[in-house]
Amino acid sequence: MNPVIELQLEHKSIRRFKKELISEDLVSTLVDVAQHTATSNYAQSYSIMSITDVDKKKRIAEIGKQSYIAESGHLFIMLADQARNAAIVEESGEKTEIFSSFDKFFIGATDAILAAQNIIIAAESLGIGGVLLGSILNEVDELSELLDLPAFVVPVLGIALGYPDQEPQSKPRLPQKLVHFENNYPKWQNISSKLEDYDNTVTEYYNARESNKRIETFAQMITHWSLVTHPGRLKMLNYIQKQKLIKF
Amino acid sequence: MNPVIELQLEHKSIRRFKKELISEDLVSTLVDVAQHTATSNYAQSYSIMSITDVDKKKRIAEIGKQSYIAESGHLFIMLADQARNAAIVEESGEKTEIFSSFDKFFIGATDAILAAQNIIIAAESLGIGGVLLGSILNEVDELSELLDLPAFVVPVLGIALGYPDQEPQSKPRLPQKLVHFENNYPKWQNISSKLEDYDNTVTEYYNARESNKRIETFAQMITHWSLVTHPGRLKMLNYIQKQKLIKF
Repeated sequence: MNPVIELQLEHKSIRRFKKELISEDLVSTLVDVAQHTATSNYAQSYSIMSITDVDKKKRIAEIGKQSYIAESGHLFIMLADQARNAAIVEESGEKTEIFSSFDKFFIGATDAILAAQNIIIAAESLGIGGVLLGSILNEVDELSELLDLPAFVVPVLGIALGYPDQEPQSKPRLPQKLVHFENNYPKWQNISSKLEDYDNTVTEYYNARESNKRIETFAQMITHWSLVTHPGRLKMLNYIQKQKLIKF
Repeated sequence: MNPVIELQLEHKSIRRFKKELISEDLVSTLVDVAQHTATSNYAQSYSIMSITDVDKKKRIAEIGKQSYIAESGHLFIMLADQARNAAIVEESGEKTEIFSSFDKFFIGATDAILAAQNIIIAAESLGIGGVLLGSILNEVDELSELLDLPAFVVPVLGIALGYPDQEPQSKPRLPQKLVHFENNYPKWQNISSKLEDYDNTVTEYYNARESNKRIETFAQMITHWSLVTHPGRLKMLNYIQKQKLIKF
């Protein structure tokens, strides 16, 4: 164990922030950290958007249905971005069709997501808290318009950061043996029995926490989750293809 | 600046390893760190496969066309995994079609990729080096068969780890202003002129480094990259749909 790993093991999403904004210097440091993340083929197929415009931030909070997005000390939108690379290729006189492959989309998304995690770790090391936001994708067409995203660019994840104004408890994770396997993928027959202890742990966690109490097992939570998906999230593939990505 | 951020800024991919394997205890710590990464909707839609079988490791090194994969001290394959969740839903008597949405695939991929970055940071904090491997996807059908992956599971990234036996130089990144924007996405006209200084930096980097010398600008590198894609990588979307993911 060391201080880095201790920090990582202590991760909790923070959704209530003090009013203080993250300084420009710290934002620049976080971007610097993001840029030092591994990037596929050295192509740096991602970009980072800072939302400092108050109205845009509010609109994104509405899209994500989370008021804390508007109240955050800084809001990043991570973009899978092949537009910069495609512009380079086009100016060199070559064709850009390859950027419409799933492969190039996924390289961009991977770069952006890896960088997002590096930002979160760096922020937490500075006493800043944050939460990763898939919910920005609820109305992805509108978000895309709001940010002027051209072809070959799609948002993949938001990061709301700020100085923490809450101390949430750590959420218990699945037992390692249900997540980490050796050489072969396991079979999931009778998964209810395999989950029994964990289901109890999750129920205890929900009973014990101060706010948002609800008695639920992990299995019930997952089943519920499978039944309710924001309708906008089912437009993602269509939107991505409109952006000229994942055409083949 | 602090030790965590210093570590992140010093990141370099390591591709030559000492013979020593990563101990089981450390592997378990790395999995623990991965499990403490943020996960969308608390659903933990990813899994981690350790490849300890020597023959499988060799086969994956052939798929990735990188001998250092076989020589690594530990090899993880990160999986976007909705199979465990789908099994839970199925046992509860509900339908599993929703897991074929792009949304649920992307949630799984995001979970897996965020966890991968946390593993890399934790490993580096322990003096271990590593490299993220998109190249495991070169022959994804074969990889999938090798790992017995069922429907709703796809590999997204490999992580080869080991005690470093090289000291590579840091690769210069794009200037912040070409990667980090505020509120609106920029236009890329005359990108060659915007890239001029960085192109020179990259050329200098390639000239200065001890091995693998090649004189090339960033723009030339990207154009070359757009022209050569491993044919197997263009089978990804088809494979993922065969796994019942990204059907809509």
